[in-house]
Amino acid sequence: MAKPSPVSPLAPTDVPEMPAIAGVRLATAAAGIRYKGRTDVLLAVMDKGTTAAGVFTKSKCPSAPVEWCRAVLKNGKAQALVVNSGNANAFTGKTGKASTKLTGDIASKAVGCKPNEIFLASTGVIGEPLDATKFNGVLATLAESAGPDGWMDAAKAIMTTDTFPKVATATVKLGKAKVTINGMAKGAGMIAPDMATMLSFIFTDAPISAPALQALLKAGVEDSFNAVTIDGDTSTSDTLLMFATGAAAAQGAPKITKASDIRLKPFVKALNVILNDLAEQVARDGEGARKLVEVVVEGATTKASARKIAMSIANSPLVKTAIAGEDANWGRVVMAVGKAGEPANRDKLSIAFNGIRVAKLGARDPSYDETEVSNAMKNPKVQIKVTLGLGKGRDRVLTCDLTKEYVAINGDYRS
Amino acid sequence: MAKPSPVSPLAPTDVPEMPAIAGVRLATAAAGIRYKGRTDVLLAVMDKGTTAAGVFTKSKCPSAPVEWCRAVLKNGKAQALVVNSGNANAFTGKTGKASTKLTGDIASKAVGCKPNEIFLASTGVIGEPLDATKFNGVLATLAESAGPDGWMDAAKAIMTTDTFPKVATATVKLGKAKVTINGMAKGAGMIAPDMATMLSFIFTDAPISAPALQALLKAGVEDSFNAVTIDGDTSTSDTLLMFATGAAAAQGAPKITKASDIRLKPFVKALNVILNDLAEQVARDGEGARKLVEVVVEGATTKASARKIAMSIANSPLVKTAIAGEDANWGRVVMAVGKAGEPANRDKLSIAFNGIRVAKLGARDPSYDETEVSNAMKNPKVQIKVTLGLGKGRDRVLTCDLTKEYVAINGDYRS
Repeated sequence: MAKPSPVSPLAPTDVPEMPAIAGVRLATAAAGIRYKGRTDVLLAVMDKGTTAAGVFTKSKCPSAPVEWCRAVLKNGKAQALVVNSGNANAFTGKTGKASTKLTGDIASKAVGCKPNEIFLASTGVIGEPLDATKFNGVLATLAESAGPDGWMDAAKAIMTTDTFPKVATATVKLGKAKVTINGMAKGAGMIAPDMATMLSFIFTDAPISAPALQALLKAGVEDSFNAVTIDGDTSTSDTLLMFATGAAAAQGAPKITKASDIRLKPFVKALNVILNDLAEQVARDGEGARKLVEVVVEGATTKASARKIAMSIANSPLVKTAIAGEDANWGRVVMAVGKAGEPANRDKLSIAFNGIRVAKLGARDPSYDETEVSNAMKNPKVQIKVTLGLGKGRDRVLTCDLTKEYVAINGDYRS
Repeated sequence: MAKPSPVSPLAPTDVPEMPAIAGVRLATAAAGIRYKGRTDVLLAVMDKGTTAAGVFTKSKCPSAPVEWCRAVLKNGKAQALVVNSGNANAFTGKTGKASTKLTGDIASKAVGCKPNEIFLASTGVIGEPLDATKFNGVLATLAESAGPDGWMDAAKAIMTTDTFPKVATATVKLGKAKVTINGMAKGAGMIAPDMATMLSFIFTDAPISAPALQALLKAGVEDSFNAVTIDGDTSTSDTLLMFATGAAAAQGAPKITKASDIRLKPFVKALNVILNDLAEQVARDGEGARKLVEVVVEGATTKASARKIAMSIANSPLVKTAIAGEDANWGRVVMAVGKAGEPANRDKLSIAFNGIRVAKLGARDPSYDETEVSNAMKNPKVQIKVTLGLGKGRDRVLTCDLTKEYVAINGDYRS
């Protein structure tokens, strides 16, 4: 069982008040899936007419709930989301599939809708059968008690080794009406691109069609969740779902059917801020993290090339352990640039840590002051900037350092 | 400076006596490159007519000595090898290039040959200028004192964070004559495929032409050094060189000009055993390693696909920390199979740890005994076998576990 960890020193200090979203009701329970003495089930009930969008892990061995969501997403409609922590229902064979079916049946009866309007997500240990009969009764009770508040409780119920709940909110104009976007995420370990977070859910009362919602989500994920890596390990369960109840239509919000609709501009901007905010919170809560690390690569031949080099740096154990040791070890950054396999000219390369250039044109910058750099490395946020000098390609990824605590947490998780 | 570490618990217990190789003379010195109180320079002098072969890092930012070796290798002839530890002469710009030139000049005068018959290798910290004037005098003295013995001293002089010297030897028939192969390696951190070891040198008295030697080395490296990974990080300096003095021709060994020569069969076999032996020693001395991990993937669509999946498992921090925690966490193995991006069918997958099957056909094997598996995980050698059930592709890679010691070693290396 996951041991309670002290809250990450990188946890955000200003946690927002989460407003209600018209058309969404929440409830949580302790169903004893795996953990004791804490909530481990979230039910979100949504009004009829809610549209859905989703982005999932690219793993070739996805969890049963991911396969379930992919199937029901074709429908584009949602009336409930059921999330459990403690058991990922991944690599559970036929039992896993039966378990999602049973959960879907129990939830659809509890909420009063079709099973293909139920979305499922599970997070926790892999390979253990998930006993869906534990949802019997629980989901019906939750459906009755669900209310518009309790967003922070919801974010807590989906945590595993996370040390703090992750939420974000924004209210923007859509046409002349106000619409709200609420988001939550859980992360911690097994975080890598091609869905960076294990689970994240976004809710809005904006009236947006399912295809438009899907296009917004897909575009937004690329530079937020997909630009975060903790350990390069991609989960079997990574799931990002977005639901739009459309309730704001009653306040005059226009019905949007195309992602390119110009009236969406403030909404898209706010959505991307929320996705980035949640993705950064995931990096801030990387297992054992003591430093938030931003890797910026400039002057690459293309943005894609910059991304690949940035990921090579962000996933390098040698770079990450150096940051943990507050060591501006730019030699390891060079190594990580070199192994990325992307165009790079050693003799044009410059590297800076937190704005202090330590290497230029392929060699140590003779002007840099070791004491100044050492002090800069004590900052809880470290930016590594690499300038390749080849073209205009630029990208940025977020990660955290690799500490002894990461090893301790992951060497003793299952037992 | 690298702190002296206790010898890895995985160090081999039977260290071979290293015989002399006719045509090779060795000497070591303490030149004060970076370390104090230990040797840090190796000079190997070879008879005129010695042929050379080499395989190098695929890094796009290689060290100056790697670029030097690539250039002189075109010549195919060698009369000396100069290796220093403590400074990798990597990412040192024009200074680095000048430094290799000066070293080559000093060595060629000391040995009495052309600079393009000198091979250079450097290992240690990246980005610090290497002061080649420190070789002045030192190499001349070494050339005079060099003798046929001292192989273990040579292997010690090239160590950095290695905890034990790595050597291997074999004597086989070539035609009717006996020929000897001696090898040494240094490894420890920044070990990944596309040259798995930072430095390895093989010497033989067999008379083999440079093109044939190059073909043998290139073929041999694929399933030995390139099948080892410590942390997925590829060094800027990885170098494997092989030298053949041809001295055994005087004892009647036939002169070999083609790698396909049938008379080479026992030689090739012995060479591959040595390459595998050294590569395994590198894995056994991975930074902070407490477990030697062999990952076997069977039933893949091709060997290349099996290799990619095996590397995905071997480089997964979550798999490696689980092994460190003696936890048969096959869920993480599934995750690593899934993220490799290669053909895999979750519902055909089986996984065994040290011969005990824990998962079959995509779910937990109901018959496995947790106590039995827990005991098996206490073994210092752990085999993870994944059976995909898709085809006949099979491959194997070696790695080690990821421990708190790895983080400690690498968080405090440069300072």
